[in-house]
Amino acid sequence: MRTAVFRKANFNSAHRLHNPQLDDKTNEALFGLCNNPNYHGHNYDLIVKLIGEINPQTGYVFDMKILNDIIKEEIIERFDHKNLNMDTVEFKNLNPTAENIARIIYELLRSKIEVKYELEITLYETPRNYVVYPVK
Amino acid sequence: MRTAVFRKANFNSAHRLHNPQLDDKTNEALFGLCNNPNYHGHNYDLIVKLIGEINPQTGYVFDMKILNDIIKEEIIERFDHKNLNMDTVEFKNLNPTAENIARIIYELLRSKIEVKYELEITLYETPRNYVVYPVK
Amino acid sequence: MRTAVFRKANFNSAHRLHNPQLDDKTNEALFGLCNNPNYHGHNYDLIVKLIGEINPQTGYVFDMKILNDIIKEEIIERFDHKNLNMDTVEFKNLNPTAENIARIIYELLRSKIEVKYELEITLYETPRNYVVYPVK
Amino acid sequence: MRTAVFRKANFNSAHRLHNPQLDDKTNEALFGLCNNPNYHGHNYDLIVKLIGEINPQTGYVFDMKILNDIIKEEIIERFDHKNLNMDTVEFKNLNPTAENIARIIYELLRSKIEVKYELEITLYETPRNYVVYPVK
Amino acid sequence: MRTAVFRKANFNSAHRLHNPQLDDKTNEALFGLCNNPNYHGHNYDLIVKLIGEINPQTGYVFDMKILNDIIKEEIIERFDHKNLNMDTVEFKNLNPTAENIARIIYELLRSKIEVKYELEITLYETPRNYVVYPVK
Amino acid sequence: MRTAVFRKANFNSAHRLHNPQLDDKTNEALFGLCNNPNYHGHNYDLIVKLIGEINPQTGYVFDMKILNDIIKEEIIERFDHKNLNMDTVEFKNLNPTAENIARIIYELLRSKIEVKYELEITLYETPRNYVVYPVK
Repeated sequence: MRTAVFRKANFNSAHRLHNPQLDDKTNEALFGLCNNPNYHGHNYDLIVKLIGEINPQTGYVFDMKILNDIIKEEIIERFDHKNLNMDTVEFKNLNPTAENIARIIYELLRSKIEVKYELEITLYETPRNYVVYPVK
Repeated sequence: MRTAVFRKANFNSAHRLHNPQLDDKTNEALFGLCNNPNYHGHNYDLIVKLIGEINPQTGYVFDMKILNDIIKEEIIERFDHKNLNMDTVEFKNLNPTAENIARIIYELLRSKIEVKYELEITLYETPRNYVVYPVK
Repeated sequence: MRTAVFRKANFNSAHRLHNPQLDDKTNEALFGLCNNPNYHGHNYDLIVKLIGEINPQTGYVFDMKILNDIIKEEIIERFDHKNLNMDTVEFKNLNPTAENIARIIYELLRSKIEVKYELEITLYETPRNYVVYPVK
Repeated sequence: MRTAVFRKANFNSAHRLHNPQLDDKTNEALFGLCNNPNYHGHNYDLIVKLIGEINPQTGYVFDMKILNDIIKEEIIERFDHKNLNMDTVEFKNLNPTAENIARIIYELLRSKIEVKYELEITLYETPRNYVVYPVK
Repeated sequence: MRTAVFRKANFNSAHRLHNPQLDDKTNEALFGLCNNPNYHGHNYDLIVKLIGEINPQTGYVFDMKILNDIIKEEIIERFDHKNLNMDTVEFKNLNPTAENIARIIYELLRSKIEVKYELEITLYETPRNYVVYPVK
Repeated sequence: MRTAVFRKANFNSAHRLHNPQLDDKTNEALFGLCNNPNYHGHNYDLIVKLIGEINPQTGYVFDMKILNDIIKEEIIERFDHKNLNMDTVEFKNLNPTAENIARIIYELLRSKIEVKYELEITLYETPRNYVVYPVK
């Protein structure tokens, strides 16, 4: 039977919810306070879940130190203490909702982790709002 | 691929575990301290999970402000600072266990949320006891 | 120098905020939803703090197992799964606000713990509302 | 004896640590990633503590609904979903460190709460970094 | 539809990650600080999940008091305040990684809980590292 | 007025409560399960509090990056993934109770932090048991 392993990390970023293909009035109606042109920010909590088999030699599904290093290099250095809309290529033209951030994190990590491991991202924007991607 | 979004809320209620179709001795044996005729109470923590597709225009699966309003109108106003057994029609004849409360919350929200969204309820009765409904 | 030791515990109770010396209208104005005549309830989190000297033989300020037993006997058995207004002598004629519950817990424990230990009670009514008694 | 009551709230803001009286190199040396010119952000958790006497009529030190309203009007509406450096008068010329934000919150609330209540602010910038102001 | 119920518990143990079939150098390379021959330790948080049908007579999927007793007898008494490598038969020849501990807990509980209930174990080694077993 | 700043950290260690000047029977009576000769362990959560004045140039009481480095060098590297009784000079002849660990951490940090800052240590042995040292 398979086993899931989870690693938590966190990053602090500024963002603004805004779809540049819509006019300002529609953006404000859709996103309210989150549309503030001067940005606001969050402490994002990230949980990376890998599903695989326990390696009988190590007793590990995946070495958490290696997973932690991948998360740091691919996600934390890219997004921590950044303005997601201004400082990152990923959200130059993509609205940085929690859903889209989780999807981008999935894609960034998916290319660094062998396909034999199933991968799932949980992202807390606040302690009361969070998302999981992908869901089968 | 689909995405899940989660919204947390909470309400504080009194309740008593009691099945009126059973005699008092059986109720006490089944429910112990939770059968206290004068009630006890809990801070219930509720997590509502919706699964759907990310709307490309908004970057949202579902607008969390709208979901929060639905939870307030349908659940919090109905159960917060209430005696579940005495003050609500839902538990007049239904034992207010965490399992049954989660099921009732599911049914109340199910009728307010389009069927294209899959819906799942997590309810914490205490930080050490909680339930999820439904499970496929 | 002195050291403080803390022990957490919890109990689940029903209560109603109501001052029987005031009329119903005044009670409702003062206490709002908390004045519901059929009660509501909470998961109360209790933190008991003792300040004293470290005993050089044991390395303890106070044996936590003994403190835990005192808390169970004096507080948890008295208030857990009870209706504070109806089931306890302490709140028959005293409004069970968090402030008054903390004060009563202090008095109940003060008589069981040697006076050489300074004693302080923290009581969470919800994760967002809590009190400390006494404050110098 | 006096009693302390606590109310938690939270707000999400963008900010940048920067002292305009220093040159850019010194600012970067002092504040590192926090000096990012495009801002980053946080979920700030705020705890407001009031110390006073229990009112024998209500059993309250202070009505938490009123305290919550004051916090919302004075703090949350001012800082939530804002860029502290750009959108607020308080931090136009004051570096928005956790220490300075806590001090400003104290001053904003101090003018709204009777002087007979002692007031103390706890502000979490992240779950691992927080401050208390003032300390006697 | 089925319902899941969850019960949390915890135990504090010493352990060392070490595969006796490998040489010391390989063990140190694989397990780093966790290979310390004098052991280190953790506060393990355990969540036991049962999936079943709600019993219409009780409103329960499973009586949490009975589940708690099973967890205490089978898991807490066996592992709490123990050295997993030295004091337990389960980890005499099995590396006590979080993955393997979760699997052993599953097997110990599986034999005590009727097969009509689906069973899943979540084990937190630290707040940032945890595992789930089994995963379908 | 003065301000307090707090930084959290954590370390995972094995320990055994034992006073070598007492016989085995007395040690077992005093320390129960914690006297297990093969050790058990904990995830220790540490909070370091510094009290001082806000520096008007930086807006800081103390640079949290520098405090974090001091905690890592002096405390985490010394105690993390160690057996406190066997691997450290501090607890070779001192019973590693939470009280004594907090006092040792205070002394180790006191010598690294200017005396103009007041220093206080909070140490969680479990989420339900913790200590503060020193208390005035």
